Amino acid sequence: MSQAAIIDGAGFAAGLRARVAEGVTAFRERTGRAPGLAVVLVGEDPASQVYVRSKGKATAEAGMVSIEHKLPADTSQDELLTLVRALNADPAVDGILVQLPLPPQIDENAVIATIDPDKDVDGFNPVNVGRLASGLHGFVPCTPLGCLMLLKDRLGDLSGLDAVVVGRSNIVGKPMAQLLLRESCTVTIAHSRTRDLPAVIGRADIVVAAVGRPRMIKGDWLKPGATVIDVGINRVPADEPGKTRLVGDVAFDEALSVAGAITPVPKGVGPMTIAVLLRNTLVSACRRDGVPISDGL
Amino acid sequence: MSQAAIIDGAGFAAGLRARVAEGVTAFRERTGRAPGLAVVLVGEDPASQVYVRSKGKATAEAGMVSIEHKLPADTSQDELLTLVRALNADPAVDGILVQLPLPPQIDENAVIATIDPDKDVDGFNPVNVGRLASGLHGFVPCTPLGCLMLLKDRLGDLSGLDAVVVGRSNIVGKPMAQLLLRESCTVTIAHSRTRDLPAVIGRADIVVAAVGRPRMIKGDWLKPGATVIDVGINRVPADEPGKTRLVGDVAFDEALSVAGAITPVPKGVGPMTIAVLLRNTLVSACRRDGVPISDGL
Repeated sequence: MSQAAIIDGAGFAAGLRARVAEGVTAFRERTGRAPGLAVVLVGEDPASQVYVRSKGKATAEAGMVSIEHKLPADTSQDELLTLVRALNADPAVDGILVQLPLPPQIDENAVIATIDPDKDVDGFNPVNVGRLASGLHGFVPCTPLGCLMLLKDRLGDLSGLDAVVVGRSNIVGKPMAQLLLRESCTVTIAHSRTRDLPAVIGRADIVVAAVGRPRMIKGDWLKPGATVIDVGINRVPADEPGKTRLVGDVAFDEALSVAGAITPVPKGVGPMTIAVLLRNTLVSACRRDGVPISDGL
Repeated sequence: MSQAAIIDGAGFAAGLRARVAEGVTAFRERTGRAPGLAVVLVGEDPASQVYVRSKGKATAEAGMVSIEHKLPADTSQDELLTLVRALNADPAVDGILVQLPLPPQIDENAVIATIDPDKDVDGFNPVNVGRLASGLHGFVPCTPLGCLMLLKDRLGDLSGLDAVVVGRSNIVGKPMAQLLLRESCTVTIAHSRTRDLPAVIGRADIVVAAVGRPRMIKGDWLKPGATVIDVGINRVPADEPGKTRLVGDVAFDEALSVAGAITPVPKGVGPMTIAVLLRNTLVSACRRDGVPISDGL
């Protein structure tokens, strides 16, 4: 029995980060400034603190300026909007990322809608969502764009392939479907209300799983040879008592003997998100300063 | 053999227009003003002239103010944008519709992006496209919203149904897919690159055809009992020499013996477009003046 190829997301992400760093060097030589990414964190959610730290570190490693704004948990919506508007107006800031989730007194949609769409490197502003859906240039959310890069790296032209996206979140599922449609896949969006998920998955050349339920997609649901992108990052008990480990939305061990290729969890899709964030920030800086965007980004 | 029910789009549209007219009466009593729809036509495309005339007539019949701006074919983009901005600022205007296509010297995307999203009753501004995709309130393009109304009127709750949208235009296919996803259908978007369209269509409880190719979807492709919404309006030679007639994207006569229900062409989806335009204009007026939107709209 043949074994699926393991898609090396961590390796691809490292390569992308290296290309971003090269692009940043060229940008600095040309413009005399470094691209800047502002990250805003409200409150002290531990996971968010880890993400923000990772993003800041990676931004600096790529040669860009990382600007971190940490606000207390009781920050008002007006205070946050005032900060966002100041970042919109700051010429040194090319990308603005407000770490989600926000405390309950703040309306996330209001914040996202206030970020200048041309600095919205997360791609969550409805203007960018609409640009993606309308086939216009804009920013695409980092995780689905990273998934698409892995798919194109693996498969080349995706035109005509049957793709299934499992999950319909605004952050992953819906933009993923738009990206696959843009690549001329026949795209199906499945979700918790889907009646016969095994059948839907069983006809797909490409499966993108983004549901957040550990190992819910079984190996024998897959079409033999399918390419599987597993966005899920679920913490489950490990074999050793008291320990935990991370697994995806796909039953990886089962899938290995059916799929043609699959991303592991961890070191699959996960590392792509920050790499694409850096890429989007460099692209934003290039657009804002009229610098051509180099190939490979 | 059972025969498909014919979905009476013309009748449903007439009912919707009557409900809009009632809503307009209530709105006028409450606010002392009538909702206003501004339609802008550039040049003399005969089909566009017919559409604009129909829209103006229907608007007035619903008790609303119709404002028509007819500009010469050599109007510059700046002149058109200046008019759009004036309509954005005009408190008597609740809806703005710029009839497409525009002459080649004008960038349609620039015009659409300039229309105030809160007056964009066509739902083409990327902000509204993004709102729809993000699950926020906004305006939804008239034709797909009309299709959804017919589907819900026929089927009730659509949750869990397998829906296929054939065609991926910004005006019909893509927003239709978003609407069906919002109703918790499992949604597949098929198009010219789809490899096995009969198989994709054959598993669908709901088929929305929006490709613009006369009778391309055959009756024996359909799943027995499927509900078929035919958005196509194609002019083909009639039996009588020198005459033409309108047909849809679905081979209607064949589909009659397989489908559970089907919209005819003409008098199916077609009349819904203007009815929903009137509905969107009234909804816009209600939102702008803080008037509750009545049921049945």
